Amino acid sequence: MNNFTFYIPTRFIFGKDEENNVGKYVKAEGGTKVLIHYGGGSAVRSGLLDRVKASLEAEGIGHVELGGVQPNPKSSLVYKGIELCRREGVDFILAVGGGSTIDSAKGIAAGVVYDGDFWDFYQGKWIEKSLPVATILTIAAAGSEGNGDTVVTKEVEGGNLKRDAHGDAIRPKFTILNPALTQTVPPYQTASGITDIMAHLFERYFTNTPEVGTSDRLIEALLMSIIDEAPCVMADPDNYDARANIMWAGMLAHNDTAGVDREQDWSSHNIEHELSALYDCTHGAGLAVVFPAWMKYVYKHDVNRFVQLATRVWKCELNEENPEETALAGIAALQAFWKSIGMPSTIAEVGGKEEDIDYMAHTACWGDVRTGSFGCFVELHEEDVKAIYRLAL
Amino acid sequence: MNNFTFYIPTRFIFGKDEENNVGKYVKAEGGTKVLIHYGGGSAVRSGLLDRVKASLEAEGIGHVELGGVQPNPKSSLVYKGIELCRREGVDFILAVGGGSTIDSAKGIAAGVVYDGDFWDFYQGKWIEKSLPVATILTIAAAGSEGNGDTVVTKEVEGGNLKRDAHGDAIRPKFTILNPALTQTVPPYQTASGITDIMAHLFERYFTNTPEVGTSDRLIEALLMSIIDEAPCVMADPDNYDARANIMWAGMLAHNDTAGVDREQDWSSHNIEHELSALYDCTHGAGLAVVFPAWMKYVYKHDVNRFVQLATRVWKCELNEENPEETALAGIAALQAFWKSIGMPSTIAEVGGKEEDIDYMAHTACWGDVRTGSFGCFVELHEEDVKAIYRLAL
Repeated sequence: MNNFTFYIPTRFIFGKDEENNVGKYVKAEGGTKVLIHYGGGSAVRSGLLDRVKASLEAEGIGHVELGGVQPNPKSSLVYKGIELCRREGVDFILAVGGGSTIDSAKGIAAGVVYDGDFWDFYQGKWIEKSLPVATILTIAAAGSEGNGDTVVTKEVEGGNLKRDAHGDAIRPKFTILNPALTQTVPPYQTASGITDIMAHLFERYFTNTPEVGTSDRLIEALLMSIIDEAPCVMADPDNYDARANIMWAGMLAHNDTAGVDREQDWSSHNIEHELSALYDCTHGAGLAVVFPAWMKYVYKHDVNRFVQLATRVWKCELNEENPEETALAGIAALQAFWKSIGMPSTIAEVGGKEEDIDYMAHTACWGDVRTGSFGCFVELHEEDVKAIYRLAL
Repeated sequence: MNNFTFYIPTRFIFGKDEENNVGKYVKAEGGTKVLIHYGGGSAVRSGLLDRVKASLEAEGIGHVELGGVQPNPKSSLVYKGIELCRREGVDFILAVGGGSTIDSAKGIAAGVVYDGDFWDFYQGKWIEKSLPVATILTIAAAGSEGNGDTVVTKEVEGGNLKRDAHGDAIRPKFTILNPALTQTVPPYQTASGITDIMAHLFERYFTNTPEVGTSDRLIEALLMSIIDEAPCVMADPDNYDARANIMWAGMLAHNDTAGVDREQDWSSHNIEHELSALYDCTHGAGLAVVFPAWMKYVYKHDVNRFVQLATRVWKCELNEENPEETALAGIAALQAFWKSIGMPSTIAEVGGKEEDIDYMAHTACWGDVRTGSFGCFVELHEEDVKAIYRLAL
């Protein structure tokens, strides 16, 4: 087990109708003028935004609004938000939405109190100071509601730079998790979120760090819970309790409660990014395509770990003569599960083509800040990434 | 699933040698003069206290000491600590030890900044303000290193009052968890700690709150990890990684990561208390005696929940014709497990006698602040408690 620091100072407020108390929580944190940051029109149409504003007003808290956050949130909106906050004297940022909205809000919060260009943080500068951020989560997926990370995309000539930034200062002061708010998320988006959550767990699970039994068990627990609950929520989108269990698992999957003690491997996220960038599929759909292919490509590196996953989580019977068969059965079970909730299995299903593979593999390995290889469970070079895409055809 | 708030602002610093950096961490929290609070001589003999002092001194942080904390920490020492801190201008409390030391430190920390009698907190007053507390944990057991709870015993005429107090203000600012510090804990104490951790999980597991799948899985995960690791640490007390997995599980078992979403039942802790009060056994040993008896007494209330535990954690085969048999097989497996690590199974083994049962049951139900019954998974009255003690004979 590695040494580690685990620090999650966010107050998680979980349950029905809690968004109606948001004014009270902002006040407790000392906020007097709030930027309400949100995405598309659903937060407006559903009446959620009105209820948030009413709750703030009831506490005498001023507010301004900035909507329009898109998936893969853009730096242009972050700049706009920073300017707005400075002009209006905003002292508290409230994200109402999913991961993209929260990530954009974190960028704004860090940028407002920084003299330089906020993009510095996304080029490696640690975020030491920030306006306080809080969130009202409306989709279980990204996990940004529980961590100190943000991903923003900068539009530059010749392509987009999708970069991350980090710091305890941008951890949400509070996060309101009302599962009922996720009941209106459409099935495909719900399944994409579930897939993303599972991917966050797999990226932690496949490690070379030895002796991490407690967090292995925790990762398996969260996976099993999602496998239990996903069919319920797909069959009955209004199932509050299934939504609740998934929402709580989604936060725990990505705040390092499970997996803080180990080296993690985020290769599949890297490989997926090229898919969603090129074919505009959801991040979850891309992961459903990429992850099983990555697993098939690397499982021989540590068959025992794949067998452990297969037997504990997927209840595959152990083939003692041929444990590789058990490992592969686990991967097949995962693929079947994702298929059962409507996720794609192949690049073709997300509209991709074989002839793009060379380009995608090259960009994954050499684009942006990459230096030819990535991955620490198994290190991958351009030829490896091509082979993984081919396994996903 | 119930509504809940989950708030764990403690910084957990996990790994080898981290106690040697304690001065740096105290400084980061603004401490300038520290009370080092500890128990018996082992922290002195092992050189731990000297290393702590050296680390504080290297950062120019002053310190005073107060040792002598005993299991079931006493109010008299808390009063002494409060007086010492006020006299010496202490602004930071550092507990070096196990649960008793941490609980005593929390009492002191709350008392120093309170005008009235600190015992008010242990009579139900919420702790709103406190000096900052931090901990260096030396035994995996009580979980106090990760929560905002404290239990202190007041010696009064006619018996002791063992009471708890609570508040976010006494959550440790940081907790240093170095598994190597637990390698010198003797086998019986190690096993008692393991038993206490498992009991914290069972007390959460047995609930009437429906639809708590995610945290059920998390509780099961922590139990399975401890069941994996305990034999390793009993066979080889120097096994760092087994100690590490147990230490991390012990914190997570009692900070509500697993179980915040439900009504919990702490009956077995209440019933055990009479055993350790009367026969001076360890809390863990008492729990090993009481918990299986409680389970046997109440399992019919929710056979499915006991079957779930038996099949998932103890890998008992489900007897579909007779699920009660499966439930009982799980309880037997627990008892066998505790026996395998040297814990007692019967009241006789901790030196108890049948003729004390009436007294213990009466005190458990009517002593101190009790009002005749307790328990919310199954409500227990005096006759029930007697029956449970008898099942443990």
